[in-house]
Order: sequence, then C-alpha cells, then structure tokens
Amino acid sequence: MDLRTSYQQTSHQLSGHGRRNVGVLQQVFAEVDPNQASDHYGTGEVIARFEQKLAQELGMEDAIFFPSGTMAQQIALRIWADETKNRRVAYHPLCHLEIHEQDGLKELHHLEPILIGDDKRLMTLEEVQALPDIACLLIELPQRELGGYLPPFDELEAISHLCRERGIRLHLDGARLFETLPYYEKTAAEVCALFDSVYVSFYKGIGGIAGAILAGPKPFCAEARVWKRRYGGDLIGLYPYIIPADYYYGLRKDRMASYYEQAKELARRFNALDGVWTTPDVPVTNMFHLHVEGDVEEVSARVQAVQDTTGIGIAGYLVPHDGYCSTEISVGDSVEAIDAPQLNRLFEQFER
Amino acid sequence: MDLRTSYQQTSHQLSGHGRRNVGVLQQVFAEVDPNQASDHYGTGEVIARFEQKLAQELGMEDAIFFPSGTMAQQIALRIWADETKNRRVAYHPLCHLEIHEQDGLKELHHLEPILIGDDKRLMTLEEVQALPDIACLLIELPQRELGGYLPPFDELEAISHLCRERGIRLHLDGARLFETLPYYEKTAAEVCALFDSVYVSFYKGIGGIAGAILAGPKPFCAEARVWKRRYGGDLIGLYPYIIPADYYYGLRKDRMASYYEQAKELARRFNALDGVWTTPDVPVTNMFHLHVEGDVEEVSARVQAVQDTTGIGIAGYLVPHDGYCSTEISVGDSVEAIDAPQLNRLFEQFER
Repeated sequence: MDLRTSYQQTSHQLSGHGRRNVGVLQQVFAEVDPNQASDHYGTGEVIARFEQKLAQELGMEDAIFFPSGTMAQQIALRIWADETKNRRVAYHPLCHLEIHEQDGLKELHHLEPILIGDDKRLMTLEEVQALPDIACLLIELPQRELGGYLPPFDELEAISHLCRERGIRLHLDGARLFETLPYYEKTAAEVCALFDSVYVSFYKGIGGIAGAILAGPKPFCAEARVWKRRYGGDLIGLYPYIIPADYYYGLRKDRMASYYEQAKELARRFNALDGVWTTPDVPVTNMFHLHVEGDVEEVSARVQAVQDTTGIGIAGYLVPHDGYCSTEISVGDSVEAIDAPQLNRLFEQFER
Repeated sequence: MDLRTSYQQTSHQLSGHGRRNVGVLQQVFAEVDPNQASDHYGTGEVIARFEQKLAQELGMEDAIFFPSGTMAQQIALRIWADETKNRRVAYHPLCHLEIHEQDGLKELHHLEPILIGDDKRLMTLEEVQALPDIACLLIELPQRELGGYLPPFDELEAISHLCRERGIRLHLDGARLFETLPYYEKTAAEVCALFDSVYVSFYKGIGGIAGAILAGPKPFCAEARVWKRRYGGDLIGLYPYIIPADYYYGLRKDRMASYYEQAKELARRFNALDGVWTTPDVPVTNMFHLHVEGDVEEVSARVQAVQDTTGIGIAGYLVPHDGYCSTEISVGDSVEAIDAPQLNRLFEQFER
C-alpha cells in the first residue's frame, strides 16, 4: 500500500474538513427551497446577494463571483496592467500564477512578471522599494507554498503606502485571507483596505466546493465582468458553487481562531519529536509545513505506520528534500473529531 | 406587467424543460451516494468516466469536460491555429464567438476570424471553397441565431472533404448536436466523423446545469487540458455540473426525436395564423424562430394577452425588426405537460 492509499483509509485526519465528496454538496442543498431560481449569466438574486455581501465584508466597492481564483487573479493583473499601461507585474517566486497555472498570465496576456526575493522566505520591504516601475504588486497572505508565513501588519502597511506613493496597484491573493485574521487581530475589511483589489477562495479554510470572489473598485469590477465573459467564466448558473460558498462561509468564518490555536498546538507537539520540525516554527494561521528527517522511503514508512496504527491521517504525499521530507498540515474541522487520548497515541507512535 | 414577468408567471411553457431552479440540481443528487468522491483538478473517477463515455458516444479519441463552451471553443481554435501556424479562422457571422463572448478569441488569442457568408442564411459550399488559407473552419449545427437551420448532410460531407484536402481543421460547434440527429438520421459519431474537433453542451436540449465537452484527437486534448488550466477552468471539483450532465443526458438524449416532431407541429400551427410565421418554415431540430407582424408594443400585448389567459408561456422577450418581432421557441419536456385542449386554446387565443 502506498502513502496516499494509507491516508485515504484513515478514519480521521489532522488536515481539512473531511472528505471532499458529494455529501459536501448534498448537506448544503438539503435545506434550500427547490423553487429558488438559478443565477443567469452573472445576474439574479443568488449571485448578486452573495457578491454584495462579500463586497461589504471585504470593504470593497464591488465583488464578482468567479469559478476559480486562477481566472480571477489573471484578470485582476491584466486590468491593472491596462490601466497603468505597463506590462510588468511583480510577485513572489512561489506565487500561484508562477507555479500552478501553466503560464496562463504570460500565454493569455503577455504580461511580464518580476519575481521578488527568493523562494525560501517572504519578500521584504527593501525588495519592494527596489522594484522598477510596475503595474501591480501581488502579495499572498499567507504565503502558502512556504507553509503559511505572514509579514508583520506594519510591514504590510508600509508596502501599501509605498505602492500608493508610486502608483503601483496592490493586489491581495487572499485565497486564505480569513485564516490570517486571528493572528493579525483585524477584520477582513481592515486588511483589504491596504489593497486595491482582493481575491478570496471558498474551498480552502472555508471548505466549499469551488469558486472565488474578486473584489475592488466599481470600474475595475465592471471590466472584470467583461473579462469573465471572455474567459468563459460567466456560466449560465454558478449557484452550485455560490450556495455552498455562502453556507460554509457562514459555518466556518468564525472558527478560524480555533483552527489557528489547534495548528499551534499540533506544531508544538511535532517540534517536540526527534528529527521532526515545522515551518513556521509557531504557525501564524491554521497551516504549517511538517518536516521529517530521512529519505522518502523511510519517512513514508514511518508516517504510514502511524496512520495504520492510529487511524489518523497525517500525510497523503511527501515532498523529498536533501535529508528530509515535507508535507502540508492545514487545520479545519477534522481535527476536532480526534479526542485527546487518540492524539496522544499519534505522537507516541510518531516518536518511535 | 412586462412580457418577461408575464412569461415567468405562466404555469406551462412551449420551450425548455421547466424552470431553471435549484430543484434541477436537487433532483439529480437525491439518489447519489454521499461518499462518492469529488473529482480533483481534472482527475478522478467521476470526471474520467464521463469524459470517456462522451469520447465514445462522439467517436473521438478523447474528451474533456469544461465549465463552458466559450472556454472550450476558444481553446480549440487556438490549438488548431498553433498547429497550422496560421492565425486565421473562419466562421458564420452569427457564431457564438463573434457575438456573445466579448471578443475573447481576439483579446486572449489574437486570432483573426473571417466571417463567411451573411447573417441571413447558412454559409454555402461555394463560400467555403472561396476561403483563403485558414487554420480552422467552425460550423455550428444547427445555426442557432438563425432559428436552427442545418445544411444537408451531403453538403457537410463535401465541406469536410474539402477541408481535409486543403489541410483546414474542421471544428463542430455542436452545442445542440444531439438535437440534429433525428433530422440527419445519423448517430452523433457519424456526424462527428466529419470533424476534427467537437464541442457539445449539456444545458441546451439536454437541460443540465452548465458545462460542455470538447472532444478530438489525443494530442489535441492533451493540449486542451493545459489551456483549461491556463484559463482557470480546471476546477478542484466540477462534479456539480458533471453529475447533472450525465443524468440529464441519460434522461433526454433519446427524446430528441419527440422534441423535433413537436417543434414541427407547433410551427405548422403558428404558420396557419394570420401575420405569424416561423423560420425554418418546417423546423429541422427542436427549435425555430417565431415571427409576428406588428411593432413591439402590439406584439408584446398580443403575446401577453394569450399568456395571461391560457397560462402557457410563449415568449419572455421579443426582438423587434422592421414591421415584425421575433422570439425563439426551443422544445423540451415542458410542452408535454400541456394537453391538447390547452394547446388548442392557445392557438385560438393567438388568432384573435
């Protein structure tokens, strides 16, 4: 049996909100009035109401529901590039647009990304200060591919101030924005106030099925709706994603502090084990990277043994590095179903 | 009350499969195992099985589920343009890409469409013969914006033959492909055999929620999957569209002959009325355009009076022309819920 299968056979998991199965959809729609009308190519009550609600939550003038963040963010950067008549945009080397989108931004829009800093740490204020003229700077909060780091809030404020002085548009990749709020002790609107445009996702910490909101000033959103049509994202009915997004947002937006506390506790216990450590050392959101010394065969056998013995899933995959392997832990509802003795047993087993 | 509201308040409709509401989704998912896994960024049983099934039905090597036809078709044309190193593609002036997509093809891919023929009729074989060198010719079956015309099958064969001789890729906009099969007396695979790539929709005659299949040779599909990721169409879960597409495809693919017969009967009865006519005169699919003499106020009042009296919806909008107005009738399950005396009453009322 491989690690993935071992993980899939566990009854509980440290990460997530449970299995991504059809039940996630059925739970939402069980209570919805069957006569409720579909949205219709971006119009209609079900989409307008959710867009307005999120615009308000994020403190932005307008908001648009998109099938995906990939589509939303490429469009955001394109609009800012057109507005500033500058093809250059800047982001971190581990930005989603750089590593997960098959170069869509370059292939579809011929924008020229500048990668800021290096792929081992967050970008710095000094690096932002040293940027040439660009249309837009994209900042991801938290930086997911590093394990979920956040810059101090006052550094964000300084970056925002700098961008406004220089006429650089500042875009927030807030796929996990809600997950950052307990650490920052800010509302979503207070964080978004530093940015010109914002994307948030509804299937990470929120645990919906798919879909994203892109928010910004009214003229920006008017243009984004045109691009959404051009991309084929303006579906006749997006309600199968919108209604779950709204449902799980209501269910989980106030649980982020609890996920964050539990992530810190899990990281503390992993860091107490020999040859095991996390980044961040102390998490600042619900997520962290877990690192275990050894080559992929050793670590895989070790993790699998724990999973098979305890029934608790830690990892379904490992990323091998020089002398250690890594995986991502992202805390959601699932961990709450694991009681204290089970969790003790997990760490005892992992120690051996 | 306006015509749209009048239409929405009718209890039965000549067109469609009933209201596009949440019940359409709930009906499908009522019987699905809640443990069935979501697809995962284009992989997983639920998406692979449906893609393979449709590839087989269409007689193509491979098939890909897309959130929209807009995305699927732009990508198809781009791939053929790259393969043939030619930026020119050709289609009818009323092609979806030309009139409903905010110029996505031009803005995202900088392709150069050549519009063939005029917007009052289908393109002809002679016009295709006269084309300059192009990458791809797109043919829509039936030509929706004209009311649903089809070329004779032997003309399609001649066009296909010509394109193959000249190295021009032939793409089928088969949004309503299944609706053409009773008239052509062909299988879907027999029609698709004339084309290099094919798009079909699952929310027109099939009556699903949204989504499309793009099918073609394996290397074409491999490239299309890359473009789907670039567009942000490779969602973490498309099953909320796939499972309904499969369900309603199973439910309705064999009813197309019945829809077609009923469309012919409705058109015959409309054509028997004074100042009322249809295009096509005798429908060749489940759809036709209905034209009524008079300006928009007159025709609107006339249609609304019939709707309010009979409870049967004919039109929610009218397109005004010089001396007459038009609307689209597209027959589905709804018409079957109207009994003969009700239908007689509709035509009696319309006559007055």
